[in-house]
Amino acid sequence: MRAARYHGPGDIRVEEVPKPEIEAPGDAVVRVTHTAVCGSDLWFYRGETDREVPSPVGHEPMGVVEEVGDDVVSLEPGDRVLAPFAISCGECEFCRKGLHTSCANRSSWGGDNGGGQGEYVKCPTADGTLVKVPDRHADDEETLRSLLPLTDVMSTGHHAAVSAGVEPGATCAVVGDGAVGLCGVLAARRLGAERIIAMGHHEDRLAIAEEFGATDLVTARGDEAVEEVTEMTGGGVNHVIEAVGAESSMNTAFGVARPGGTVGYVGVPAGVEEAEFLGAAFGDNIALRGGVAPVRAYIEELMADVLQGTLDPAPVFTKTVDLDGVPEGYAAMDEREAVKVLVEIDA
Amino acid sequence: MRAARYHGPGDIRVEEVPKPEIEAPGDAVVRVTHTAVCGSDLWFYRGETDREVPSPVGHEPMGVVEEVGDDVVSLEPGDRVLAPFAISCGECEFCRKGLHTSCANRSSWGGDNGGGQGEYVKCPTADGTLVKVPDRHADDEETLRSLLPLTDVMSTGHHAAVSAGVEPGATCAVVGDGAVGLCGVLAARRLGAERIIAMGHHEDRLAIAEEFGATDLVTARGDEAVEEVTEMTGGGVNHVIEAVGAESSMNTAFGVARPGGTVGYVGVPAGVEEAEFLGAAFGDNIALRGGVAPVRAYIEELMADVLQGTLDPAPVFTKTVDLDGVPEGYAAMDEREAVKVLVEIDA
Repeated sequence: MRAARYHGPGDIRVEEVPKPEIEAPGDAVVRVTHTAVCGSDLWFYRGETDREVPSPVGHEPMGVVEEVGDDVVSLEPGDRVLAPFAISCGECEFCRKGLHTSCANRSSWGGDNGGGQGEYVKCPTADGTLVKVPDRHADDEETLRSLLPLTDVMSTGHHAAVSAGVEPGATCAVVGDGAVGLCGVLAARRLGAERIIAMGHHEDRLAIAEEFGATDLVTARGDEAVEEVTEMTGGGVNHVIEAVGAESSMNTAFGVARPGGTVGYVGVPAGVEEAEFLGAAFGDNIALRGGVAPVRAYIEELMADVLQGTLDPAPVFTKTVDLDGVPEGYAAMDEREAVKVLVEIDA
Repeated sequence: MRAARYHGPGDIRVEEVPKPEIEAPGDAVVRVTHTAVCGSDLWFYRGETDREVPSPVGHEPMGVVEEVGDDVVSLEPGDRVLAPFAISCGECEFCRKGLHTSCANRSSWGGDNGGGQGEYVKCPTADGTLVKVPDRHADDEETLRSLLPLTDVMSTGHHAAVSAGVEPGATCAVVGDGAVGLCGVLAARRLGAERIIAMGHHEDRLAIAEEFGATDLVTARGDEAVEEVTEMTGGGVNHVIEAVGAESSMNTAFGVARPGGTVGYVGVPAGVEEAEFLGAAFGDNIALRGGVAPVRAYIEELMADVLQGTLDPAPVFTKTVDLDGVPEGYAAMDEREAVKVLVEIDA
């Protein structure tokens, strides 16, 4: 089969690789039809994190089940499924409490499982990981495009909003206008927030934020942005979504939080070395909640809304490529020409 | 009047100073009868934080109201009162939501108000700050000794336990065996925790922790301590009280937390520069809640328990001095000879 692999910073190649096969009775093999390039893929692409060379890439697969192991009970060949970015058993203490990313038997895409950006993946603990799309929606291209973000960014934005305690009538600020931040806006609106302040620096992305329900846009940076939000809200907001993970964005998030408020963070704190934000957090009892999103816990709930037409994160896909276009997709995201890249695969 | 003042690192002197007077109609002047030396007083005592020289010290006053301004409605001369370490108006948004430490009109002990470690203090916004002890308990020395910790350490330990989400049946770990950590143990037991793991390095303090309800004691340090707690709890605890505020104690707190758990922190993060703990926090969705304790919000509730005999934090006072003994009290705490020093003042 063909799959995208990482060969070093800036170097993604689509190559012939062995097709993954059922190895354990809980496995399923999925023919990938749709996948995406993630903002977090840019870390290794930019050489900011280490990664084995060569190694399969991608962690947001959607496709059709081709084969299942003997123990798989919830799926059969031909089912349209989507998969969270994390593989979980569905049975342990943490899966049972909806914290699938801390699954006691967790594994990841890549390696022997294959990467999401390839023609096939093998999914261990398939019953605990894959979510079936109801048959009558399984071949509707437009619906599939709207469902794909549930594998990562939409569910992550939702986790941020839930972690920030967004509730009906709330005022909420969203730090970051990447795909996750935009999905955070959408999630906050879905949870009933009445005022949603989107904070970012890119006009095209903030236009999507407005489409998604942002009521106010703040384009200033740093202290100036904090002052602007503090001013417009009479002292800060009770619910802040941090969707970047940089030191500056953490400081901004705590800066715009109202005393007693909560920052829901889902941006991997890759560059946060100094704990400066703790000063504001401590002095004004601003809570920090969230972390890596247990996407699996949210997919059914969000899928129901997508299928009934009340939730549509598809606009985060501003560019579409085929499998051969994956390297171009990385480049477009690296250069911020695309918010998020959809990959359509026809194996 | 006489009061303790700071003259530089290691130099506390009891001196003649002007007695504070009513200046605003909401003020009250209190004759201090009991106060304490706080672990946080050691920061300036050790030269770790800057402080004006000379300046009055102490922030845990209890005493008898001597005079009130024209607008004070809830107090009259002769009332026995205790005061939180923070002065609050009781009327603003944040006081109304129980976050008195973020009071829009807050002020502090020291300066013109006088320090708690002196014969008299002036309390601005007295109605919002001072709490009256019921008359029939107002002169019982033993009761007063048990009430005094509510001005700071007991209420702070309680805030940590509340922030950590301790509830009936919970398993809880307490990082730190200072007065706040010990009060955290007491608070966790009061809130119904069934297993309380006290973590510290001082035998005498851990003996108090046991008296306060700790079911397990862990004296190891760093990674070894984390391994021990992880092992004995089958993977960590859902509720962690962080009562130190050092980088190492934050790492320990997040290290012993179970995925999806909560760290309730009340140790001022003075030495936390590297945000290393964020890695564990993010990966396993461990929340960070708490901050400077809104003591005022908790005093009535905790006082009711002290008065009915079901709560007694007095054992944290392992040394008692008079006003002239305040410098000796600082030295005893600095050398860890005393957990917390009670100061009895007879003006």
